[in-house]
Amino acid sequence: MIEPLDNLMRALARLPGLGRRSSERAALALLRKPEQLLDTLVEALREARATICCCKLCGGFTSHERNPCQLCTDATRDFSLLCVVEEPSDIVAIERSGGFRGCYHALMGKLSPARRSGPMELRLGSLATRVAEGRIKEVLLALSTDMEGDATAGYISELLKPFEVRVMRLAFGLPTDSGVAYSDPLTLKRAINGRIACN
Amino acid sequence: MIEPLDNLMRALARLPGLGRRSSERAALALLRKPEQLLDTLVEALREARATICCCKLCGGFTSHERNPCQLCTDATRDFSLLCVVEEPSDIVAIERSGGFRGCYHALMGKLSPARRSGPMELRLGSLATRVAEGRIKEVLLALSTDMEGDATAGYISELLKPFEVRVMRLAFGLPTDSGVAYSDPLTLKRAINGRIACN
Repeated sequence: MIEPLDNLMRALARLPGLGRRSSERAALALLRKPEQLLDTLVEALREARATICCCKLCGGFTSHERNPCQLCTDATRDFSLLCVVEEPSDIVAIERSGGFRGCYHALMGKLSPARRSGPMELRLGSLATRVAEGRIKEVLLALSTDMEGDATAGYISELLKPFEVRVMRLAFGLPTDSGVAYSDPLTLKRAINGRIACN
Repeated sequence: MIEPLDNLMRALARLPGLGRRSSERAALALLRKPEQLLDTLVEALREARATICCCKLCGGFTSHERNPCQLCTDATRDFSLLCVVEEPSDIVAIERSGGFRGCYHALMGKLSPARRSGPMELRLGSLATRVAEGRIKEVLLALSTDMEGDATAGYISELLKPFEVRVMRLAFGLPTDSGVAYSDPLTLKRAINGRIACN
């Protein structure tokens, strides 16, 4: 195997969703039509690298010219609601759902002893500062439904206890287009505990 | 959506195997850790772009320093066998199988009226030249098993008629780890017609 091709495959394989075989296919496709694919991708990567940064308020992606970001400066949004997420990409997902009209705070991770991600690694100080300002009435924790997400939620609940703010979490239950037979036991248990009236 | 982020997603979505959602995830991951992921990828892309080219003999990927490529100059290989493939990436796949010890010729496509890919767009002239040299005794057509692959195979058979060379195709049949119930009718028909003795 040619070494630069191998390096390219390995760089691609580090992206989420690309395994060994798909990164090989992608690398070969990039080299097959370099003017159309490779050059375009390099240009898009460079432009994104030069332009995009994290919003100093919410931590979501924005451009250097617009910091704080569009969401943080949109007067039509409800600034008494703060949604806490792990990653900037979670903001993109929640915005796409159209289910939330407040503002955001990305932690840039979650508490994880395994990955040595403690409270100091997360944007918890700026979260407390924002809540301390008194404008926020409700904090919605939109965190992973795993042990680390639960631990992070517990930590934030404690952190925000001194403030007059409601701390909520997303509902647990079955995902859309799923079925009982496809659900794991814990999901089912949580869905049963959180059952809702049909009428 | 920030425009450079959108551009990056679109550049990634053009790669095989990356849909809209996976290219979004990849773009967000690249921006989340630019030093670790984005810069490495840009460097790998640039290096590959600067180093890798197509072998002037077989059309497979090689480096500028090694042209003709390693396969074309490996004295242990059987130069009386020539395997004709559509794309340079097909050579990688066949080499990985370990089932072929001859040399290669990549056409850089197949005959496709829909994509305006006619005989002039393919490396057919250099194929005829190589066969005309007289060293090649057998040409193995390792082409797609679709209508365009069949048409390309037919065209090459005609093209090579003047020469004393056997023109073969890959066997048709069931793929490994598959079953009758999962096979389409044409595959089954071809597998029945090409049935082999068990003992």
